[in-house]
This record gives sequence, structure tokens and C-alpha cells, in this order.
Amino acid sequence: MKRAGSTIILGGIIVVLAAALVGTLLYIKNQPPAPRGVAPIVEIDPYEADSSKWGVNYPNQFTTFQLTESNKARTTFGGSEPYSKLEEDPRLVTLFAGYGFSKDYNEERGHANSLTDVRATLRVNETTPGTCYSCKSAGNPRLWAEMDMAEFDKTLFMELGKKISNPIGCGNCHDPKTMQLVVTNPALEEALAAQGKDWRTFTRQEMRTVVCANCHVEYYFAGEGKYLVFPWKDGTFIENISAFYAELGFNDWVHPQSGAPMIKMQHPEYEFFTAESTHYIAGVACADCHMPYTRDGAAKFSTHNVQSPLLNAEVACGACHTDVGYVTARVATIQKQVRETMDASEEAIVAAIKSMETAAAVPGVDANLLAEARDLHREAQLRWDFIAAENSMGFHNPEEALRILASATDLARQAQLKAVQAAGTQDVIQTRSQ
Amino acid sequence: MKRAGSTIILGGIIVVLAAALVGTLLYIKNQPPAPRGVAPIVEIDPYEADSSKWGVNYPNQFTTFQLTESNKARTTFGGSEPYSKLEEDPRLVTLFAGYGFSKDYNEERGHANSLTDVRATLRVNETTPGTCYSCKSAGNPRLWAEMDMAEFDKTLFMELGKKISNPIGCGNCHDPKTMQLVVTNPALEEALAAQGKDWRTFTRQEMRTVVCANCHVEYYFAGEGKYLVFPWKDGTFIENISAFYAELGFNDWVHPQSGAPMIKMQHPEYEFFTAESTHYIAGVACADCHMPYTRDGAAKFSTHNVQSPLLNAEVACGACHTDVGYVTARVATIQKQVRETMDASEEAIVAAIKSMETAAAVPGVDANLLAEARDLHREAQLRWDFIAAENSMGFHNPEEALRILASATDLARQAQLKAVQAAGTQDVIQTRSQ
Repeated sequence: MKRAGSTIILGGIIVVLAAALVGTLLYIKNQPPAPRGVAPIVEIDPYEADSSKWGVNYPNQFTTFQLTESNKARTTFGGSEPYSKLEEDPRLVTLFAGYGFSKDYNEERGHANSLTDVRATLRVNETTPGTCYSCKSAGNPRLWAEMDMAEFDKTLFMELGKKISNPIGCGNCHDPKTMQLVVTNPALEEALAAQGKDWRTFTRQEMRTVVCANCHVEYYFAGEGKYLVFPWKDGTFIENISAFYAELGFNDWVHPQSGAPMIKMQHPEYEFFTAESTHYIAGVACADCHMPYTRDGAAKFSTHNVQSPLLNAEVACGACHTDVGYVTARVATIQKQVRETMDASEEAIVAAIKSMETAAAVPGVDANLLAEARDLHREAQLRWDFIAAENSMGFHNPEEALRILASATDLARQAQLKAVQAAGTQDVIQTRSQ
Repeated sequence: MKRAGSTIILGGIIVVLAAALVGTLLYIKNQPPAPRGVAPIVEIDPYEADSSKWGVNYPNQFTTFQLTESNKARTTFGGSEPYSKLEEDPRLVTLFAGYGFSKDYNEERGHANSLTDVRATLRVNETTPGTCYSCKSAGNPRLWAEMDMAEFDKTLFMELGKKISNPIGCGNCHDPKTMQLVVTNPALEEALAAQGKDWRTFTRQEMRTVVCANCHVEYYFAGEGKYLVFPWKDGTFIENISAFYAELGFNDWVHPQSGAPMIKMQHPEYEFFTAESTHYIAGVACADCHMPYTRDGAAKFSTHNVQSPLLNAEVACGACHTDVGYVTARVATIQKQVRETMDASEEAIVAAIKSMETAAAVPGVDANLLAEARDLHREAQLRWDFIAAENSMGFHNPEEALRILASATDLARQAQLKAVQAAGTQDVIQTRSQ
């Protein structure tokens, strides 16, 4: 009886413990999820342009953002050191003849330098529109709300500048109340809308790419008011963008040597990366590589020291790739292939320009054929520039870069052939740029 | 006491069971590894050319090999259906004018058809050397041992054929005693040796790529004896191969329209894949994708139904990639980009050929400039053909494919410009192939 009694007691204990465990697990399971945000220490004003105010609540993000001011590291083909691209590659002076980029074209520095650097560039003068501030200040969201974008854009740069005192910062991408990622540039909202897209329906991962398109895009200034427009109505592949400009009859400048109506491509990282690149199709966002998750003690946060992932490959690439040495070697191989192919495009375009310049001076030159040559020059150069102005030496989308450069070279050589036909003499041929 | 007694008994049982478990585990751990080979059922003769004899010991490998005879599946840009490439792309008739490939150029079928198909092609005639059997029969290793390769190559195809009755098979890649992978083609052994490499020192994974180079390579027939040589002495990149042929002063034929001394590229899968492709650098072997590990009940074996991985993507790609849909979509995107860029190269080369043909007929044409144009045509076309003859529509090495095609187009357009200069008149220009 005694043995039976102790068995019952032991059994009872087991039943009680099991019930307690089940109850505890059910309790945990039924708890509401912990709030994902962090209770703020200070309240941030709507349109707060000073990032240091946001930094009180988010010290890790702000501290790392501040690093973008002094980070001057250079990679093989990019980085944050403001070296002169014109000195590195004198062909650019010919390619951009007659346009500001032939006078001053430096590698860009980090985000915190945006205001200093736009005010220092020789490309800005008394007639520069306010539009050029669109990507330079965290003060923009307030100005866009107060004076609307049309007014912002048509105000002269020198005038508008008086209202602007902060560089790019938190307010360019975040809602100060919820810290959610938001599209702040009205031009981006309008460009997405023109494609039937509403960023408010995007997933968080999509937002981690699309907020970069607040600035890292191709754009043009429409009309007298220099209204900022992204040429995306027909799509964001280079062929769509080219067709858009051709239909519009738009050009940034006329090339003084070739006589071609030209388009300057800006920094189309968003269009290029999303053009079916392997990383984009795999679901990778810009922020995954350029703002990788980082640790500060026990805290994990997305670094805001936005820079080349090559400067931080263990963290940036290592989050997904096990063999970082393999990955960085691949980047080096690809960028070397793209640089080589880009050199050939530049040689071909420069040769075309020189042939066209000579052809135009030939008495009795065929104007129709010369116009065809000019169209070919324009198309060649905007394709080359789509890759050259894009800040990854092709790595954001390697096959697309090489596809486009191959086409640019072909079109440039065709421009040269057409110039010969226009002149009616082969004397205009120059096959090398030197 | 009774209770203490039963506790002791229970405790004793536990101790005995635990000891038994530890002992068993130690026994297993200390066993010598099981031999990796399989005891053969029948002994296979050295140089056995009949794969069905090997099949007695290796029924899974042999059964899947037999599937290569009837597998006629087609992919977007390849597969095993013997469609006419000339009908698909009439530009090839111009590109290969004056050479056998302009008369008969079909997509190849699977390994088991190698003998039937080489005997059926219109490219073979009474003067064809025995060298053309080098990649067609599992009987070759015996012939190379008995008559040596020089004798094999200089015997006429029709004569040598009497000694050959088996298609490609087990004996082309395996040692019949150990089933180890071996290099059997003396030309491959010599080409590796010319680079200071000895395949006997290669890892098994390296062998799973290099045995494919028994056949899937660029080659030429040296001298009167039509001795088989792979042009690898200076390296296996296209620039190395081009320089090798230029130095040798070798050409396969003279193009009747352009007058250029031409090189026909064969099927340089090995050279192209190993040219720093992402898969090769990551350690992937040809067999990983084309002969993936497959199950037959409990048995795991490398399928010998060698074919496009696209026909078997779940197994072929799925061994490493978790999202096979993503992977096959990437292949489609890349192949489309390469096909488009290849089309542009063909347009440019055909235009160059026509301009050169016209230029050559102009009285007083500059012979030196025409010779320069011909060199450019040759260099353009061998680059294009390196990618066109390679059986992956660029996928084996996408960036390298696009880099080379961009260069091919550029060189072809330069050939056209040079033809204009040679003729001294722009009348010879044709910018479109049609």
C-alpha cells in the first residue's frame, strides 16, 4: 500500500508539472507580440531637418551616419574619395564637351557632405535652378510641404539655398513619429504613380530599396520651371528611358563637336539595379549591402554609414555569402571586365565625335545622313553614360552593364560610318581616340 | 527492503544498457571505413569499347547513358534536338562561306549518337583525316595505344572508320579496373603538359571537369599529319588562343568574300567555363550540373544521361540552389541578353564582310589597309564564334560571353571602317546585313 501510495504521489507531481508546462506555453503563445519600435526619449518634430535631434533617440544610427562625413576610403573603381574623374580618364572631357561635366566631375563623397559638395561644384552658377537641391538636404520635406515642388524647383539655387542648412539626413527617408521608411521626394512619388505604383503598398523590404530612389535615379528638369521628373513612364530599362526622351524631344545639351542633341545620365542606381539584376530578383535590397545589420554590444541595427560594401565586405557580403574572399574576387573580376568594355565604348564614341566634327565641315555634307549620325551618337553615349554614371562599375547588374556597353560601342561605330557616308569621303575616319 | 531491492535492479538495468550503448558506439566508431568501390560482377577488359560490358557492373550509369541516344528535348537555345542552325540563323551561311559549316551545321545530339552523326554529316568527305574520330568513339583509347595518335590522325577518316564501331562510352573517361576518371585523349594530356600541368595530380572534383575536355574544347589540326592540338600553350582565354594562332600563322580557311584568313572555333566549353566563371571559381564541376547525383531507390549515382541542366533543373540546379524557379529564370534572362548581343555581333560581321568584298573590287584599293581589315574580320569572327560555338548561349560564363561579344562587334565595325579606308570611298559601306 505504501508503495502504491508513493507511486500515486509521484504520478501526481508529474501530472501537475506537465499541466503547468502546457499552461505556461499557452500563455506565452497567446501574448500579444512585443511592440517592434522603441519608446522615444524625445519627440521629434515633423520635418525635423537636424539629424542630431533624431540621434538622441537613435544614437547608433546617427553615430554611424556621421561617419559618412569623414569616410574617404577608395575602392578600385569608386569609394568615397573625391578624386577627379576627368583627370583619371581624359576622354570624358571630349565626351562631355560643352557641358558642365567636362569642367568638374569628381567621385562623390558620403551623404553628410552633400550640402558642402553641391555648393562647391563648378557645375553650379547663378542660373542653376533650385531643383539641384532636391537630393541634398533633410530640410527638403518641409520645403516641399510649405512651397510645393514646382515652387521649390523654379526658385534659383542661390536663393533657395538661404532656406537650407542641413545635408542629407534622417528626414529624407524616415517618418519622425514611427521611423517607418517613406518616400519624401514628390518626383519619386509621381514617377511611381506614372507606372501605376503606390509606395504605400510596398513591403518593408521593397522600401529598403525604393527610398534610395529618392535620389539615386536618372532624372531631367521639365520646362521653364525646371520641374524634376524621373523618365520612367514607359519603364526603367535603358531602352524605355531612351525612347521616353526621344518622344519628348528632350536634350540636356548639344555636343559642340558632333552637333548631337545629348542626354546626360545622372546616377541611375535604382533603374540599373532593378533591371532584373541577380541580387534584386533574389530579393536583396540596397540597404542589405550598403547598410548591413551591425552589432553594438547586444544591440543590432542597420548601419547608416552608407558606403561601398567592398569597404565592409565581411559584414555586407558575409550576411548571405559564406566565402567573402570568393565574393570580393568575383566583384574584382566583373568590374575589370566592365571597365575594359567601357574603355572600348569610350574609344568608339570619341572616334565618332571626331569623325562627325570633320564631316560637318565638308562642303556639301549630306544633312540627313549627318542627322542620322548625330542620333546614333546620342543613343550610343546615353547608353554608355547609363553605365558610366552608375556607381558600381557594373556590379549592381553585370550582364546588363555589358549588354548595354556592347550596344553603345556598336552604335558609336555606326555613327562613325554614318558620318563617313554623310561626308561622302573616307577622310573623316579616325579609328582611335588618340 | 523490497523497494530498495527493486530500485537496485532498475538501476542495474540502466547501467547495463548505458554501457552497452557506449560500447556499441565505440565499436561503430572504430570500424575501418567501408571500401568506397564496388566489387565488380564481371572483369572489364582494358580498352573495352563496348559500354554494355561495363553496364553489367554499373547498370544505373549504363542505363542512364543509353538515354542520351533517344533524348531529343530542346531548350530555348540548345538541347539535343538536331535542328539546323543554318535555317535558324541564315547569317551563318555568310559567316562560314567557303567552309563546311556553311553547308551543314546542326545542333548536336547526345553522346550515344556520336558515331552515327559524324558519319552522316556533310562536312565529312574522302579527304577528311582520322583526327575527326578523336571525340567520337570509346574505341579510341585502344587505337591510340596500338597505333599512337600521330598514326591515328593521319589515317583517312574513311579508312580509320573500319576499326571503329562504338560511339562515345565508358572507356572515354574511366579506368576499367578502378573506375577512376582518366584523361584518355593524348591531345588533352599534351595540352595540359604544355601548361606545366599533370592531370594525375588533379583532385577528383577537378577531374569531374577536365575529363569533359577530352572533347569539349577548341582544337586545330597541325601540319600534314593533321595532328590534333589544343591551342592552350599561352593560356585558355580567347586572347591567348587568338595570339597563339596568329603567332603560328594558322588558319582553317580563307573567307571567299572578305579574303580574311579565318579560324573556326569548335566547342570551347572547357576554356570558356574555366575562364573565371562564377560557377568554376566556386568549385563547381561540369558533372555537378550535367551529370547530377540521382537516386534509384536507395542507390545514389551520377546520372550519365548528360544533357542540358535546364531539362533536369530540379535535380541539376536544386542540389545547390534552394529556389530552382529563380535559377531557371536567371538562365533565361542571361541567355536572352547574350543572344541579343550575339545578334548584333553577327550583323556587324556580315556588314564588314560585304564592305570588304566590295572594297576588294575597287580599282587601286590599298592592299595594306585591306589586309588590316581582314585581320580585324578574323579577330572579330573568332571571338564571336568562341561564344556562338560554345554550347550554353553564354550561361557557362555570362560576363565573359558579353565581354567577348562586345569586343567582336567593335572589331567588326573597325574592319568595316578599315575597308572604307582601303577602298578610298564610302560607297562600300553597308550598315545592315540585309
